[in-house]
Parts: sequence; structure tokens; C-alpha cells
Amino acid sequence: MRKFVAHRAKTLLKTTTSKSNSNYSSSSSKLARFFTSLNSPPSDTPPSMASDLSTPPVTVESLNPKVLKCEYAVRGEIVSLAQKLQQDLQANPGSHPFEEILYCNIGNPQSLGQQPITFFREVLALCDHPAILDKSETQGLFSADSIERAWQILDQIPGRATGAYSHSQGIKGLRDSIAAGIEARDGFPADPNDIFLTDGASPAVHMMMQLLIRSESDGIFCPIPQYPLYSASIALHGGTLVPYYLDEATGWGLEISELKKQLETARQKGITVRALVVINPGNPTGQVLAEENQRDIVEFCKKEGLVLLADEVYQENIYVPEKQFHSFKKVSRSMGYGDKDIPLVSFQSVSKGYYGECGKRGGYMEVTGFTPEVREQIYKVASVNLCSNISGQILASLVMSPPKVGDESYESYFSEKDGILQSLARRAKTLEDALNSLEGVTCNKAEGAMYLFPRIRLPNKAIKEAEAAKKAPDAYYATRLLNATGIVVVPGSGFGQVPGTWHFRCTILPQEEKIPAIVSRLTDFHKKFMDEFRD
Amino acid sequence: MRKFVAHRAKTLLKTTTSKSNSNYSSSSSKLARFFTSLNSPPSDTPPSMASDLSTPPVTVESLNPKVLKCEYAVRGEIVSLAQKLQQDLQANPGSHPFEEILYCNIGNPQSLGQQPITFFREVLALCDHPAILDKSETQGLFSADSIERAWQILDQIPGRATGAYSHSQGIKGLRDSIAAGIEARDGFPADPNDIFLTDGASPAVHMMMQLLIRSESDGIFCPIPQYPLYSASIALHGGTLVPYYLDEATGWGLEISELKKQLETARQKGITVRALVVINPGNPTGQVLAEENQRDIVEFCKKEGLVLLADEVYQENIYVPEKQFHSFKKVSRSMGYGDKDIPLVSFQSVSKGYYGECGKRGGYMEVTGFTPEVREQIYKVASVNLCSNISGQILASLVMSPPKVGDESYESYFSEKDGILQSLARRAKTLEDALNSLEGVTCNKAEGAMYLFPRIRLPNKAIKEAEAAKKAPDAYYATRLLNATGIVVVPGSGFGQVPGTWHFRCTILPQEEKIPAIVSRLTDFHKKFMDEFRD
Repeated sequence: MRKFVAHRAKTLLKTTTSKSNSNYSSSSSKLARFFTSLNSPPSDTPPSMASDLSTPPVTVESLNPKVLKCEYAVRGEIVSLAQKLQQDLQANPGSHPFEEILYCNIGNPQSLGQQPITFFREVLALCDHPAILDKSETQGLFSADSIERAWQILDQIPGRATGAYSHSQGIKGLRDSIAAGIEARDGFPADPNDIFLTDGASPAVHMMMQLLIRSESDGIFCPIPQYPLYSASIALHGGTLVPYYLDEATGWGLEISELKKQLETARQKGITVRALVVINPGNPTGQVLAEENQRDIVEFCKKEGLVLLADEVYQENIYVPEKQFHSFKKVSRSMGYGDKDIPLVSFQSVSKGYYGECGKRGGYMEVTGFTPEVREQIYKVASVNLCSNISGQILASLVMSPPKVGDESYESYFSEKDGILQSLARRAKTLEDALNSLEGVTCNKAEGAMYLFPRIRLPNKAIKEAEAAKKAPDAYYATRLLNATGIVVVPGSGFGQVPGTWHFRCTILPQEEKIPAIVSRLTDFHKKFMDEFRD
Repeated sequence: MRKFVAHRAKTLLKTTTSKSNSNYSSSSSKLARFFTSLNSPPSDTPPSMASDLSTPPVTVESLNPKVLKCEYAVRGEIVSLAQKLQQDLQANPGSHPFEEILYCNIGNPQSLGQQPITFFREVLALCDHPAILDKSETQGLFSADSIERAWQILDQIPGRATGAYSHSQGIKGLRDSIAAGIEARDGFPADPNDIFLTDGASPAVHMMMQLLIRSESDGIFCPIPQYPLYSASIALHGGTLVPYYLDEATGWGLEISELKKQLETARQKGITVRALVVINPGNPTGQVLAEENQRDIVEFCKKEGLVLLADEVYQENIYVPEKQFHSFKKVSRSMGYGDKDIPLVSFQSVSKGYYGECGKRGGYMEVTGFTPEVREQIYKVASVNLCSNISGQILASLVMSPPKVGDESYESYFSEKDGILQSLARRAKTLEDALNSLEGVTCNKAEGAMYLFPRIRLPNKAIKEAEAAKKAPDAYYATRLLNATGIVVVPGSGFGQVPGTWHFRCTILPQEEKIPAIVSRLTDFHKKFMDEFRD
């Protein structure tokens, strides 16, 4: 019966819609039609349906199937298990063979003890409570340049009202600072009107997916392995993820031949590929793209008419001297492509970098290369959520315009930043070496970002055991690791991997003094695991 | 050709999906299938398609049609015009017959000069920069109880890390405070596990729409007039807005007979109505529901198997002694309905009330009456965005647990709160009286919320003039009002109204000393407008 009703509904809705008839062209009258379309009695009236009260009004089966399809491994099953173990440990210390849970599943630096940059927090606190700005005690507590910066920021906010909704794209003055920061970084102009401030990068990604995906025939090109935000967002918006495989053998290289092959395959299947996601530096893979490779990617998008969605949230996280971050905007501009030539969206976040301010939910996207009409639609979607949080907006402007040489805070700022980045580089190297020393494990270098993504060659016996436990082999390994050591990693199957290969993602974020213990617990576990299952 | 491809795609996708074959039942392997489904070469291969490069890759026509359908009047055309006029005034002072733009289009109190509650801002600043908490100067700048409260909050956050992602539902300790606040308000138990902290109430509303709407055959019952977030969100998620009309003649009464009639009509059209939105106190209408009326609504939802979506963000904004706010949860519990009996979601925000902290993007939904399996899906959707901003989370806990009698801040807190609410009540009354004194205008009392929604009886000549200008008559009136006075109101057609009637929404938020000038400008404009068009 439900099926019949649904079909009927579609037919009826079509009739209603095509009958509707415009008197006014203003946008508000379109809306008026949208909700009065149901108001006139229908021409034919099937018998009334009372709802079936024997089941609850909402069941999993009656939810949006796109929601059911969506998955987000970074906070999935393994994290639920970790939370359970943590509760056990609190209730019964000593109930497990470890004293604490080490969350290496998520890029959440401050949860593992990383300290925020003092200057940033000073400015945020002052903007939260401007009443103290001209009190004498304040000068004893805050640096002179943080006080000055807070005044500057407040002056950019109409009425100095940090508690007001801002422009839907974010406060104009803050967008000016961000655009200036992008120009300084790239050496090419940036327009504050191209900046959309968002609550972290995730809502910006969702916004672009919402705009581009019309149906499951629309495809979004994503690297495999990928950050599961992309697969989740594509599933939620009802599109199709079109994979391109990064080449593990060449340090997670991105080959244009692979893009071509997969594009061809997708098109043969009737998929309209609309956009290409590139994550640089890579998540979960940690590679940093070479500029030449980036040029090829830009050329490919240009030629194939794809929107380039550049996830550049790890732009400050580079750990090897031979690699440098180049934004895709800089690369495309240096190739001579202007704003009209290629639609390009760059995502940035305050959650990563040396700042790691995940809880502040700040970020932005720089949107270039779209027609004014399309831009208007992007603005409309942004405006439905009113604006992103002002503290996050302020912080996004601060990370793009930190203290400069000569500012009172510069030295402490630089030493905090440098300390964090140097330490991350050391941690990455230590963990990488440790992983590479394990039997059957190989791990590419983390050139950037915050993760290692080692490949584990699991013995057949372990794979069979996993199948018996109805788990993917890497999920089985990760579960055993967690139960034995308290270390939480995410199985590679949550990110995608070449079928038949197994990986896990492990952040490089635990505090440096904890790394030796982690290495020894991991080594110990792996040795025992292999002893148990070696073929 | 595109159509053919789309059809082909659907067929092919169906084939691919039905062929896929599970080895593992773990959730991560489902994901693996999702993105490897495109990986094997197709069985038959139509010729390769190159994209058409004569048009840009993204045009309005190639965007998601749901996005195109979505409208959001509160930040629509009229606001763009206001921004343009504001720029004019800055560039050429005196270029318009007014000195400033008065934004009465949006409930954004601090943009119009409302000051934040000192205690709340003290706590936020201290949590942003905990390093100053034990400095001696801090005691000279902050109240003792704000320092104490900041410590309490920091102790509830693992590692005191306000810069870390929290649990996807929000920090547990803050949810405990909120649940305690709900219990104190309602006299019935509240469970912190039912609280989902969100970046304002809007994302929470989107989340519920995303879960409940499967297709355009799913309907969401909304009051008309309604807050356009609902129509926008339903359009974005591809559902159908099923209207029920509030009765202007009885002070925007909500009649159960109207609900029954509209439900019947919708069902006859094949719509499965899934949820009922109630906004109490009303937006844009300002009425406060009587408890008896709320009981009838609960009973109706229970009988008809509807989820009750209770927008209760104006719960602190009540201006008449004869009315009181009762949460729908309290009402349903007092009727004897427990957690298993009725699915009910209550939305709350830090943006409204006497606090008006719109820029902080804090809020929560209290989710009760769903099965554990459905709850898991809600949690999953929340987790894809990681968490809401921590300052907003802290503020949401503060508004639900403000200073108490005896706390150092209590007196200043109470006097700030009382001052704001008393002033809002006076402003509402003055504006209401002024509107009612205008020719052809009637305006119901603002018992609560932040808006007046007067009905304007426009002369036929004005309606014809509007038609000639291709505008809805109320949009025409609002545009003329803006051009003549700088006052920004939102045309009633953005909220929905009985066809043939015309209204506008005007906030009661301009500063009290500005109200007389607003009244006189509005009165003057209206008189001239009527003189120009009177039939």
C-alpha cells in the first residue's frame, strides 16, 4: 500500500506543480506557491488513511535511506568500543591490560595534550569579553599586541557586537584579513568576496556536495584512500563516489592515467562526474603533492570540465624539507588560468596546522571560477544557516594573519608554533620507523598532515578468523589492538583501499613522551598477533 | 543526450548494486563496497563522452534543483537592497532621506545594541584562555563566581581542552547541566544522553529533516505563517511542506480542526505526513500557546503517529503576565506520556531569550521517544560534523544554569536580564499600538518571541502597482518602506499567509530610545503610501 501511495503522490505532485501559475515574479511569491500548493482540495479523493499505530511512528526502515547508507568510520564502531573500555577503566581501574585509552583515531591534537597558541587565545578571550579591554589589569594579563589586535577586530564588526549574526559569508573585515593572508601565501590576488567562513571545513564540504549533486547519476571523484567525510557527505546527498586510487608503491602518488581510466569507466556507466576532490597534504596518506603533479591535475580538471575541490586543511603540516605546500589556486594562477577559467574551491580549517583548534569550529572555503548566478546559490545556502560562529571566524582570520616579526608576541608565537611542528615531525618519523620494523608491515613516509597509513599483510589464518567474527580483517586487527593496548586506530576499510590490501590509520598526535610506550605496546601486540596467526 | 545518460545510469547503478556481494558484515566493509562498486569494468561499453566545453562546467541549470527551490526570505531580496542602501549612505551621506538602516528583518538583538549578559561573557573568556585563571589580576577583572564556574566547566572537559573536538553530542558535563536545567524548568526528569548540542538551532532542524524526509511524498506539517528555516530546510531535503493555518482572528490560534482538515487533505494527495512543527512562542506571530491547546496537539500527534518538532527557542521571551511557557515535554509528561509513547524533539538556542547570543552559534535539541536504533542514526549524522563549537556548547549550558540567588553575580545578572526583558515588553507594546493606529493595519499582541506580524489591507491601486512592478504586494510595500525610511521588514509572503492577505514581520529589537523615531517614520510613510494609493 505504501508503494502505491508513494507512486500516487509523485503523480499528484507533478500535476499540482505543473498547474501552478505565477502572478508575481518576486522570489517571495514562488515561496508562497510552494506552500499553498497543497491547499486546494484535490480533484479526486482516495479514501483517508489512518496511520498504523502498531509500530512506532519512526523506525530505522522509515528513515531517509541516504542517512542509512552514510558511514563515518573515524567515529564508528571502534570508537564506541574505546568509549566502553574507558568507562570500564574508570569504574574498575586495572580491569584491562592498559591504564588509558590512546585516541589515535582522529586528528584532535588538543585532546592529546597539545597546547593552544597563546596569542590566538588571548585575542579570542578579549573579543569574548571586550568590557575588560581598557581595564588596567588587562595589560598585566595579556600581551600588548593581542589587546591591539582585539581592538582591530572589534572595529571590523558592526557595533563591535561579537554576539550578533554576521554577514552570511562571515564578517567582511575578517575576510579581508584572510584574503590578505592568502595573497601573502600565494603571491596572487585573493578577493574577500570569494571567502565563505564556515564552522570548520566539514560544513563547507557538505555545502558544495549539496549544490553539485542532483542524483545518484552525479559522481564526485575522490582519492582512495580518502577522508570518510567525503564518502559520508556524498552518501548523504545521494550522489556516487567515483574512486581514483593513489599508488601506494610510489608514496601514494596521484597518477593522471588513473584519473583518466576511472573517469572513462564512470562515464561508461552513465555517471556525470562533476568534481574532483584532492586532499593535499593527504589524509589518511600523508603525502605532499609535487607542484608538477598539481599542474597536471589542474589541466585534467580544466579539460574534463570538473570542479576542483581542494582540501588544503593540512597546509601548515609539512614535515620534510624537500616538500612545500602549494595551493591549487596558486598553481592554477601560475599556469595562467584566471578566475573565469576553472571552478576551484579551497577548504581551510582552524582544526589542523600547528593551531589544532578543533573545538572552535572555524574554517573557510575560497570559492573561485563560478558564474555570478551560481555564486548567488552558494550564498543562499550559506544564508539558510545564518552564519558561522564568530569566535571561529576570528580564529580563522588569526591563523591566516598571525603575529609578524617585531610584534610583541612574535617570539613566543614562533617558538610555540615551531615547537609543535618540530615535535610532530619527530613523532611521525619515530612511528613510521617503528611500523616499518614490524613483520609484514610497510609504511610510507608522513610528508605532511597528521597520519600514518601503514599496510599490514595479514596471515590467511587471521583473515579467516576475522571472517568468522564477521569483521573486515583490518577491523579485526584494530579491535584486537585496542583490546590489548588501549590504542585506537581506524581500519583502512573505513577510508577505502585496493581490494585485498589491509591498512589502518594512526595519528601522529600522542604526546612525545608517550610515543616510546606506544611503540613498545604496538610492537609487542603485533609480535603476539603474528605468532598467533602466522601461516 | 543527458537524459539518456541519466536513465542509463540509474539502470546500471541498480545492476551494480544488486550484483554486489558481501563477504563481511562489518560496517566498514559496506563502505568498501560503496566505493569499489564502480571499479570493475562494465559489461557493455557505450562510446566515451567528452564534456561539452562551450558552457562553464557548472551553471545554475546544472545545480541540485532542491537548492534552486529553497528560499530564505529573512536574508532575501529586501536585505540585499538594504545592504546596497547602507553602502550608498557610507559613500554619500545624505543620499537617502534617512541616516541609517534599521534592520528589523531578523532576530539579531546584539546587532541593534543589546548588550550580552556579563556573567556569560566572563565565563566564556576564561574558558577561552584558562592560562589566566590563577593569575591575581584576574580576580580584579572577573567575578568570583565566573572564575569558579570556569573551573567547574574546564573540569568537565577531558584534559581541560576547550580546543578539542568533543563527543559528537557535546561535552557530557555540559549536557548534565542542561538536563538539570530542563528538570528544574519542567519538574520532570531529563537525560543528558538525550541532549545533542548543535551550532544554533538551525543545524538541529536540518538534521531532523534529513532523517525524516525520504522523498517529496514525505510531508512535514508547518504552521503558516512559519519561520522560513522550515520551508528552506524541507525544500533542501526534498520533502513537502504541509501547511496548517494559524487563525489570525483569534490571536494566531492553533486549531486542532485545522490540523485534522489539512492532514486529511495531504493524505488524500498521497503525502505521508511524518512530523508536526510547532513554534512556541510563535515566530513570526508572537503568540504563546495555552497549556490546554498544547495537550490537544500532543494528543493529535500521538493519535496520528507524528513526530512533534517543538521549536522552543523563545522560551524566555514572554511579555504578558497571563501567559507562561510550558515545554511540550513537560506537557506530554504531565499527560502521562513517557519516553516510549511519543517521539518529541525540543529545539533551544542561545541566540534568543534575554541572552540573544546569535553570533555564538550555540543550541541543543532534546530528543526523546525514538527507538535505540533510530537514535543511533541521529548520532551518526551528528558525528559526521564531528561536534558543535565548544564556546557555543558552554554558553548553552550557561543559559540553562544561570547564576542563582546568593551567587556573587546574581544581582547584576538578574538586573541585566530583567532590564532586557522589561524593555522588550515595552517596545513590543509601543510598536503594536503604533501599528494598530495605522489605516488598514491590524496587529495581534506579541505575547512572546521577538516579532510583530501586522496585517496590512492594501488598496487595489497599490496591488496593481505591485503587479506592474512584478512584486508581491507586501514585498512592494516593504521595498517602498525601506526606500523611504531605512526600516527593513520582511514581507509576509516569505512566511506564508492566507492567500489574498498581506503582512510583514518586524522585530521589536531596535533600541528603546530609537522606537519613537521608528514609529513616527513608519506612521509618516504609511500615511503617504495610503494617500498615494487609497481607492
